[in-house]
Amino acid sequence: MPSQASKPDNALVLLGAAMRSLRKEKKISQETLAYLAEIDRSHMGKIERGERNVTVLNVIKIARALDSLPSELFARADL
Amino acid sequence: MPSQASKPDNALVLLGAAMRSLRKEKKISQETLAYLAEIDRSHMGKIERGERNVTVLNVIKIARALDSLPSELFARADL
Repeated sequence: MPSQASKPDNALVLLGAAMRSLRKEKKISQETLAYLAEIDRSHMGKIERGERNVTVLNVIKIARALDSLPSELFARADL
Repeated sequence: MPSQASKPDNALVLLGAAMRSLRKEKKISQETLAYLAEIDRSHMGKIERGERNVTVLNVIKIARALDSLPSELFARADL
């Protein structure tokens, strides 16, 4: 396992969990979300697990694909 | 000028402007904000101008340094 993946930052875990829970509410697969957000599928999985320090532009693409807003995703994550 | 700096994404400009306006409300200099957030000062300037695709961990550090939250910074930017 790469070192970046072995120490996920707690805030990234919370944000990724918020993305995942909203995705499940919307009944969208992770594969479909990755496709809609134009993010590599394995990168999307790492983002949902909090294993990647995701950029603002990718948070925006994910929020749009979930019919949401970055502010709502962060609020859902208590961040 | 590096190409990354010449085409700032609109969302990054909005987010950077929100950081700058909150910083000014708090009467903190950009240098002090960079110090508090542990971000290189020139990088901080580029973030405020929307010239860098800032990461979530840096947004969190900037929000903390401003006594705010990422969700509030994004909401202030209408994002």
